[in-house]
Amino acid sequence: MTGPPPAVAAVRRAVRGALSHLDSGALVLVACSGGADSLALAGATAFAAPRMGLRTGGITVDHGLQEGSELRAAEVVTTMRGLGLEPAESAVVHVGAEGGPEGAARVARYTALDHAARRLGAEAVLLGHTRDDQAETVLLRLARGSGGRSLSGMPARSGRYLRPLLWLSRAQVHTACADMGLAAWSDPHNADPAYARSRVRREVLPVLQRELGPGIAEALARTSDLLRDDADALDRWADSAEESVRAGSGGGTTLDATALAKLPRAVRTRLLRRAAIAAGAPAGTLFAVHVQELDRLVSDWRGQAHVDLPGGVRGLRIRDRIAFGGAAAEGDARGDAQRT
Amino acid sequence: MTGPPPAVAAVRRAVRGALSHLDSGALVLVACSGGADSLALAGATAFAAPRMGLRTGGITVDHGLQEGSELRAAEVVTTMRGLGLEPAESAVVHVGAEGGPEGAARVARYTALDHAARRLGAEAVLLGHTRDDQAETVLLRLARGSGGRSLSGMPARSGRYLRPLLWLSRAQVHTACADMGLAAWSDPHNADPAYARSRVRREVLPVLQRELGPGIAEALARTSDLLRDDADALDRWADSAEESVRAGSGGGTTLDATALAKLPRAVRTRLLRRAAIAAGAPAGTLFAVHVQELDRLVSDWRGQAHVDLPGGVRGLRIRDRIAFGGAAAEGDARGDAQRT
Repeated sequence: MTGPPPAVAAVRRAVRGALSHLDSGALVLVACSGGADSLALAGATAFAAPRMGLRTGGITVDHGLQEGSELRAAEVVTTMRGLGLEPAESAVVHVGAEGGPEGAARVARYTALDHAARRLGAEAVLLGHTRDDQAETVLLRLARGSGGRSLSGMPARSGRYLRPLLWLSRAQVHTACADMGLAAWSDPHNADPAYARSRVRREVLPVLQRELGPGIAEALARTSDLLRDDADALDRWADSAEESVRAGSGGGTTLDATALAKLPRAVRTRLLRRAAIAAGAPAGTLFAVHVQELDRLVSDWRGQAHVDLPGGVRGLRIRDRIAFGGAAAEGDARGDAQRT
Repeated sequence: MTGPPPAVAAVRRAVRGALSHLDSGALVLVACSGGADSLALAGATAFAAPRMGLRTGGITVDHGLQEGSELRAAEVVTTMRGLGLEPAESAVVHVGAEGGPEGAARVARYTALDHAARRLGAEAVLLGHTRDDQAETVLLRLARGSGGRSLSGMPARSGRYLRPLLWLSRAQVHTACADMGLAAWSDPHNADPAYARSRVRREVLPVLQRELGPGIAEALARTSDLLRDDADALDRWADSAEESVRAGSGGGTTLDATALAKLPRAVRTRLLRRAAIAAGAPAGTLFAVHVQELDRLVSDWRGQAHVDLPGGVRGLRIRDRIAFGGAAAEGDARGDAQRT
């Protein structure tokens, strides 16, 4: 008796590992675009999950961005049913404009997956991201210079979302897909240089591999794992320090600069960032440079009175306090703090 | 009255900022290869430092690796004297083989700089690394996949070593060098594809800039700064937790697995790494994967008895303890731990 081809065995093993925490009878939903990665995931899940006493279903998201996307979604549903995933459905989404083309498509996709999971009562939604996707993600985020949490990439497990293939190479997963005899669809977006991710995939990673060695994708993925641990620990420290740096009893967030100064900068900047967001600065446009300026009110104070932050929020140093106000409300905030 | 050209002003300003903590009369030594970066640094220091009441000197290291290096070193000394750096000296070093060509040259260089600084009584040694050097360093370390501390790159200040130009671009520093009328030497090693750093400089960074945007060097440098803060904070946490995880009173390091398990993984792995090094595992070959395996004795223990580490060190789980022994000494270590 011969076993399955090695790549198929590896993908099935990865799926089994990712599902091992689920209770018997739970429904597992595979998110499948019809591409080789998620198709291999669907095939392996259809094989492995029932043997673990789990129910399996599949969902494909029709972003409606390409000619014939509806037809393709129907084909993916047929393929998923053929594999034994039942229910198998497609979800049509409307992709907005906010956050750029990739960001908007991602938001629409996860909204649809969340909705389907709730509606069908799925305990887990499986995503087909591979180690190469992770490496691309890390490189894209590196280009933003936004630090540890952002660089920590995609987690293998986040709520109901699981990424069983995150430690397998794309090449191996594609081999598994072919070995399973599944015909994959090739998304033209993946080759479109208008998308930063496709440029990273086609231009950047191959150069890194050639110049720095073939292990670069694995190194990037491993780095992102280590940085996720670091960011988790520092968030935990910030959680436990939050109470000790709160100052005053008035409305709004006021922080004690002396208490902040005793914390290491990594923890201090996390608390300052949280306070700025609580005061109304939008998380998406509050960058590391803003938080750094804010930190100078604590660590390098030479009498500067305020720092202007996105969203019209102003960070103020008033004697031993860090307070926040709208640019317009500054007078009030100053008055409040001076009365304490 | 016109001021100096903008690039020259920027380099002088950077030098002034880096030297501001020094007491009047202190000797500042510029490490100068004769390349454009360190030559601009020498010129700016010769201008700025005396106006701050500091004494200036210069040192160039002759690695003896290239034909005519002695002559070139003598020329750099002459140039430094011409700028007013006095004493100005060259130090001949012997580059060994350990750690590869770049690593060996670095070790020899810093040994010579340390020696010169001590001999001349210098309070500070200035190094000409720019933001682009920092970006290259981060990319080279990324390729190793070794996590936060390693990615945190070169610090602006470490003991007596200062890097005043770390936030200036190489282009700006080269402009300053030319604007000062100084003739720079171009190290052929910088263009030699045998060196990973030169491949990063000539092949990798230009592609990243083209595909991900011109801000990539700054983003990498900023990332390394944020990660240094993170690593500093986590080291501090590990310091303060060290006592609480120590178990037993015998010789050697024995850790309490229950206490370790309560710590976040980032702190736990730091403590495990320290203990493994204390037990004799060489820091340079103890990789993240080893520490991860060791951590599984704590976080994912399924009866596995030991993990083999570099240097013939073995990490052991014995009931609620993590102990270390040589592979040969395992029996002893087990016996010791079982007697506690």
